[in-house]
Amino acid sequence: MEYETPLFFHVMQYAARADRDVIDMVSGNPDWEPPEALREGLREYADFEPDRFQYPPSEGLLELREEIAARRGVDTEQVIVTNGAGEANYLAMARALERGRGSEIILTDPVYPYYPGKTTMLDGTQTFVAADEDGQLDPDAVRAAASEETAAIVANSPNNPTGAVYPEATIGELVDVAEEYDAILISDEVYDHYDLSGEFASALSVDSENRIVTNAFSKSLAITGFRVGYAIFPPELVDDARSRHMLVNVAGSRPSQYAVLQALRETPPEYYETNRELLRERVDTFTDALDETGAEYTTPQGSFYVMARFDGYPGTLANVERLIDEAGVAGMPGEAFGDSRSDWLRFALVTPRVEEAAKRLATHFE
Amino acid sequence: MEYETPLFFHVMQYAARADRDVIDMVSGNPDWEPPEALREGLREYADFEPDRFQYPPSEGLLELREEIAARRGVDTEQVIVTNGAGEANYLAMARALERGRGSEIILTDPVYPYYPGKTTMLDGTQTFVAADEDGQLDPDAVRAAASEETAAIVANSPNNPTGAVYPEATIGELVDVAEEYDAILISDEVYDHYDLSGEFASALSVDSENRIVTNAFSKSLAITGFRVGYAIFPPELVDDARSRHMLVNVAGSRPSQYAVLQALRETPPEYYETNRELLRERVDTFTDALDETGAEYTTPQGSFYVMARFDGYPGTLANVERLIDEAGVAGMPGEAFGDSRSDWLRFALVTPRVEEAAKRLATHFE
Repeated sequence: MEYETPLFFHVMQYAARADRDVIDMVSGNPDWEPPEALREGLREYADFEPDRFQYPPSEGLLELREEIAARRGVDTEQVIVTNGAGEANYLAMARALERGRGSEIILTDPVYPYYPGKTTMLDGTQTFVAADEDGQLDPDAVRAAASEETAAIVANSPNNPTGAVYPEATIGELVDVAEEYDAILISDEVYDHYDLSGEFASALSVDSENRIVTNAFSKSLAITGFRVGYAIFPPELVDDARSRHMLVNVAGSRPSQYAVLQALRETPPEYYETNRELLRERVDTFTDALDETGAEYTTPQGSFYVMARFDGYPGTLANVERLIDEAGVAGMPGEAFGDSRSDWLRFALVTPRVEEAAKRLATHFE
Repeated sequence: MEYETPLFFHVMQYAARADRDVIDMVSGNPDWEPPEALREGLREYADFEPDRFQYPPSEGLLELREEIAARRGVDTEQVIVTNGAGEANYLAMARALERGRGSEIILTDPVYPYYPGKTTMLDGTQTFVAADEDGQLDPDAVRAAASEETAAIVANSPNNPTGAVYPEATIGELVDVAEEYDAILISDEVYDHYDLSGEFASALSVDSENRIVTNAFSKSLAITGFRVGYAIFPPELVDDARSRHMLVNVAGSRPSQYAVLQALRETPPEYYETNRELLRERVDTFTDALDETGAEYTTPQGSFYVMARFDGYPGTLANVERLIDEAGVAGMPGEAFGDSRSDWLRFALVTPRVEEAAKRLATHFE
């Protein structure tokens, strides 16, 4: 069986081995602080009685599921706490495919590469619908691609890698398309706290039996390594998803879940706003400095990423490696995200050195 | 899709809701202390820099993989750190099935119910080979059941639920059978630190391209809720397993992995010996008191479990629930482990109140 292994880890390893200072803009790892209450949650955990070191409920700590359900306006029963958004998307895609309605997954181009990887692993087939130059998705194009064979449509807003935020009308129409073909809209909203546009709309804003929402605390609490995410299923789909979760992972990490629960309870809104503001400043700083390079680039409405195109320098892995060695800046090759962005490079704004990075790029491409 | 959802959680919830004191002997959750160094690992973690809160390598923290490899005498490259033994067994079974040699998984009867659940989820077929009355497995019976259709043989020693420990000859012959049919022996050794017989042999004692060993720190460090396990693959099988792990879970919980690493480094052998001794005492206490009930029972060579048979009281879920309500003792129905033990009940020795439990059973069945 062949998987389309994501390139992230390869590029990060290449950058780590480089014989020079490299500014790491490869992966979506926040470099800002997790909430203090999360740290305090770990400290408390260290002194708990032994019974707290044993299995949490398979579907997650009840209080965490209740907290999520209250925030998202759904029933607690619909919530499964997962090992990050990675497992949430895996469960959602598997659940859509095992309904037996068809084996096709509709993805966007550009695409977050784990989605096609998961599709292949789950014996699904892929159909790509091109986003426009701004990363926006035309629901009519999705409708035209959909058929009785369609098991799921996977949407991601705020989007990785384009930075697009889909307006509410798009989300609503995507749910409509899913309903028309009795498929499932899987809405991955992991960057919801990094909407810089004010336009973000959750798929939960539309009531439907044909959508699954996935999310995680990896980005919002700056803890990609804690592996706490969740999926919200329609009531009829949740039981089998819970069984798969149990059969694959038994349960998620309990100290991680507890620390997240404490962070959700104790962290004020300013924490999230401060991080959004930091990201806004980095977008401005990086894109302003990119102007010096003569590159074409996207200004993200949300998420962590700026895509840039340098004349005569396509977004291949070889060129990314050259840029690490010769400019000391590590990004991701656009070709990892699909054919439509193969001329582009993606830079994650997860370093305070975004201005220095842009200057290095300007020097390199001058 | 129908899964055979394990009954553990159902029984635990039933016991928790009971309107009386119930001695919980349902699940394999140690009630003893995790190592102090594990607690200290969490305390340290709380003060780490933000970068330590981000993704660990997908296959696990390098130092943890090195520590495991050194202890098990394998190459670090063969080790994938997983979300507990649950994910390790899932990866191993998926890997065996995707070789395309056949879709049959040979399991024992009695069986740990997650194995048939995973088999069904992975579209494999099940063939059961009966263990003998003592829980021992006859390799010739496995050989007779095996064929070109066999993808894997799943063995578990020390065994849940029988308490049997397979001698080295059995393990060696099971590897031979796997090699004869180019199948994979999956050896789940999660109870290896609870061998009370001195007879335990790891499948790593036989060099073969046809065996995968799975394990976890859930039992040995008394941390079933931390979700840190591992699988050791033959070199040719590890790449695809690593990809599946990445596509399902991205990575495991980093603070959990770090705390386990600290515990492995700092915990003296006495910790493990003390817990084994505690278990030995509980086996003696519980089985001595069971003599008063007139029940037939097994004396485990390893793992946490005593199986008992009470006259005219088959091991059904209904009877387990009656025992919770009427005797205040919660076990697992033998029928959950397969046809051969449907007259039996399984009691996990994970409470200091094993003598009181046996007395309650004596009173109930007198």
